[in-house]
Amino acid sequence: MDMQNFEKELLSCLPEKDDKIKTVISSMEYSLSAGGKRIRPFLVLEFAKLCGGSEENAMPFACAVEMIHTYSLIHDDLPCMDNDDLRRGKLTNHKVFGEAAALLGGDGLLTLAFETALSEKAVSLNGYEKCAKAALTLAQYAGAVGMIGGQIIDLESENKQVPLETLQIMDEKKTGALIAAACVMGCISAGASDEQIQAAKDYAMNIGITFQIVDDMLDITSDTATLGKTVGSDIENNKSTYVSLLGLDECQKISSELTEKAVECLDNFDGDTTELKNFAYYLRDRKK
Amino acid sequence: MDMQNFEKELLSCLPEKDDKIKTVISSMEYSLSAGGKRIRPFLVLEFAKLCGGSEENAMPFACAVEMIHTYSLIHDDLPCMDNDDLRRGKLTNHKVFGEAAALLGGDGLLTLAFETALSEKAVSLNGYEKCAKAALTLAQYAGAVGMIGGQIIDLESENKQVPLETLQIMDEKKTGALIAAACVMGCISAGASDEQIQAAKDYAMNIGITFQIVDDMLDITSDTATLGKTVGSDIENNKSTYVSLLGLDECQKISSELTEKAVECLDNFDGDTTELKNFAYYLRDRKK
Repeated sequence: MDMQNFEKELLSCLPEKDDKIKTVISSMEYSLSAGGKRIRPFLVLEFAKLCGGSEENAMPFACAVEMIHTYSLIHDDLPCMDNDDLRRGKLTNHKVFGEAAALLGGDGLLTLAFETALSEKAVSLNGYEKCAKAALTLAQYAGAVGMIGGQIIDLESENKQVPLETLQIMDEKKTGALIAAACVMGCISAGASDEQIQAAKDYAMNIGITFQIVDDMLDITSDTATLGKTVGSDIENNKSTYVSLLGLDECQKISSELTEKAVECLDNFDGDTTELKNFAYYLRDRKK
Repeated sequence: MDMQNFEKELLSCLPEKDDKIKTVISSMEYSLSAGGKRIRPFLVLEFAKLCGGSEENAMPFACAVEMIHTYSLIHDDLPCMDNDDLRRGKLTNHKVFGEAAALLGGDGLLTLAFETALSEKAVSLNGYEKCAKAALTLAQYAGAVGMIGGQIIDLESENKQVPLETLQIMDEKKTGALIAAACVMGCISAGASDEQIQAAKDYAMNIGITFQIVDDMLDITSDTATLGKTVGSDIENNKSTYVSLLGLDECQKISSELTEKAVECLDNFDGDTTELKNFAYYLRDRKK
């Protein structure tokens, strides 16, 4: 993925900063341009290419999924949720624009995601059917049964021990669902088969859970300087994690198994799967 | 509009109250079933019928626009916005479920609106093209350039005098935009012409501003018992209103002119416009 091009495309989706509504557009722009790994857009574009489509056609869907991810971070950082002052070393949205504009900026990005996936440009590249299917996929995975459902489970699990099953359902929803939306939207853009869409979902869920298990392991095994955030916070917060429930060795084993499963899912595709294979291994082996 | 049927259809769009995500679904359900005049769904269905379509086909769009309206009320009532404890005599969402679940419930309804407009059912009734166009319309009018833009102008106009132009732009966005989305979505469901869609927009904007002018007038001329909310609050809050800027007589005159304009827009349609005419007069003449 050409990162510079993606950043340009992403910001070009924002409405003009008309004088009277400048505050809310600035709030949206601030968080949208705050960086991040852009994992979900990468997955949209890679799955599109893998299924014989193009980056250009899939680009509106890549932007849409990143808008959903960004709005979820803005709302997650609000005082009534995690109450965070910093994200990626920058002030959180509400610390810059105030709570009301952060709330509305998040709402604006959530709405803009659907406007982007169904835009004239998206339709001229993909047609009505693919755009409608991609936007529906996004709504389903981002909604109360998907990502938002994961957030409510997370909230209700705070400061208490939860069983492994709850942890897994939470992560499938909170992290896995939007990653799955990304992979499936890429497939839809390229006109992939139902079998391929199912394989993309399975790949997504396996790397999504791996991502979370590795996160929990790094909270124990890494140091604050490498990780760029405070280690040991899970123990301090008395939080159930994969490590606290299963131990480090079992986590290592499971994350490797899930990664192999993810890689096997890619056998359902004829194209070049190198990038997506490497990405699965990268998530397993990352040190931060 | 068969109100009982609409309420049933609306609630049937909610996901199952799966144990782990029960809180957020309950939050969504609480506000969705809290009543209200259902003006926007009525307009969707009426314009659909006027353009030769059916209530059944337009129903998913009617539900979608009411979900957007409902989420905007939940977020508007939050402490960081208007900080209201009561709405229509019932506790506001965050007073029942807490701020976090209210925030997420609002996000859930906003997302569910697009899921509903693009659902399998909506597509089987209207086809991909109409669903994609209707959902795009909803996103455009509900987004930062539309309703959300109106909310930010409202926030930034608090406790200060603003010129008539600002008041008008704010109301066009805050109230008019979603009413316009409703009218246009009805037209889209019925396959109306571009001219009819434009006429529906004009009707919407004229009744939307009339609605707001009458609201401002009632704050002066009504009494608390009739209105069901405290009168005189605009003066107390030193708020610029149509009445404070133009006077009662001029407001009376303008609201009548706008209503006549709205009614004239209906000349662009061949069907029976009685209901929509009466609705425009009702908004002008209402006493609460």
